Amino acid sequence: MPQNILVIGASGLIGSAVADVLDARGHHVTRASRSTGERVDLRDEDSLVALFDRVGPLDAVVTAVGSVPFKPLSELTQDDFRAGFDDKTLGQISVAALAATRLRDGGSITVTTGILDGRPVPTGAAASVANGALNAYVRAAAPYLPRGLRINAISPNVLLEAPGYHASFPGFTPVPASDVAGAFVEVIEGEGTGAVVAV
Amino acid sequence: MPQNILVIGASGLIGSAVADVLDARGHHVTRASRSTGERVDLRDEDSLVALFDRVGPLDAVVTAVGSVPFKPLSELTQDDFRAGFDDKTLGQISVAALAATRLRDGGSITVTTGILDGRPVPTGAAASVANGALNAYVRAAAPYLPRGLRINAISPNVLLEAPGYHASFPGFTPVPASDVAGAFVEVIEGEGTGAVVAV
Repeated sequence: MPQNILVIGASGLIGSAVADVLDARGHHVTRASRSTGERVDLRDEDSLVALFDRVGPLDAVVTAVGSVPFKPLSELTQDDFRAGFDDKTLGQISVAALAATRLRDGGSITVTTGILDGRPVPTGAAASVANGALNAYVRAAAPYLPRGLRINAISPNVLLEAPGYHASFPGFTPVPASDVAGAFVEVIEGEGTGAVVAV
Repeated sequence: MPQNILVIGASGLIGSAVADVLDARGHHVTRASRSTGERVDLRDEDSLVALFDRVGPLDAVVTAVGSVPFKPLSELTQDDFRAGFDDKTLGQISVAALAATRLRDGGSITVTTGILDGRPVPTGAAASVANGALNAYVRAAAPYLPRGLRINAISPNVLLEAPGYHASFPGFTPVPASDVAGAFVEVIEGEGTGAVVAV
């Protein structure tokens, strides 16, 4: 059944691939980002509320946002860890929390974390922390969402289409964004909740 | 072999139990906390540096600190998540980062997380997030610490001696602080690194 789906971060590699594949499967997709389509700034709660007000009733929301500093372990400061947590973790939690009050019954929330939670790299500790925190939120929130709502995380490997990151992931096998988008389809059209799906 | 060990959070249930058992095993233990023994305020980097300067060469450091707001999922705000992350996660990361530059070669860092990362409760999402973030840090930092240093996390169940928390952990089997302290001994006197030890 076609769903009304909001994709936040739709200008990014993952968000655009997800929006494209959901479109192709007949869903009604609204694309939002900081810079294109429906505008939203997740650091501003009012901006997020206004976005939900504009787009109307939704069955699903996807977030694929957040940047995190990459530096050698000994150079990461408290501010670096806090910046990654604020942007990637709290940015996506803020959407999930609002979606929990706005989605139609049985709707789904899908966030984006990443492989560094379980498989660290030399410069990735702040990303590991942001991902680990968000995965924990998904597991913690899933059993207690109201009205049959579901929440899942997609945890991608480094993307084939992001060669600038490949040197930071030595020995990793990059995955195409289309594979990652497939995992979003799986959880949005599926029935599971509280899952962290590695791609 | 007896070690010089600094326990931060030594006035708490876990920290005092760890300090007691390490003492009993013949180690030289320095007890620090916000309110008793050697004073330290982890929100103040200078206070932490001064503590390390005062206590001299160390083989191991233990942290058992951090408070996190407990509220129903729908009532948790961004500030609640941030408060738990700042206090429990970043507080302990700040100690680990300084210890990485100060401990003797081959020394160990042991932090305290908690069962809510993997086993959520209705009011515990902010604690799940703080614990998940810190567990991710331990896994991410372990392979990249210099000079043979080790880092591990102890992840305790709710404590038998903390009945005020029991109602928030329905169906959980509380564990005595002495069992938790035993896990600290295991990783401090052992050789492992990057482990998250559930008690």
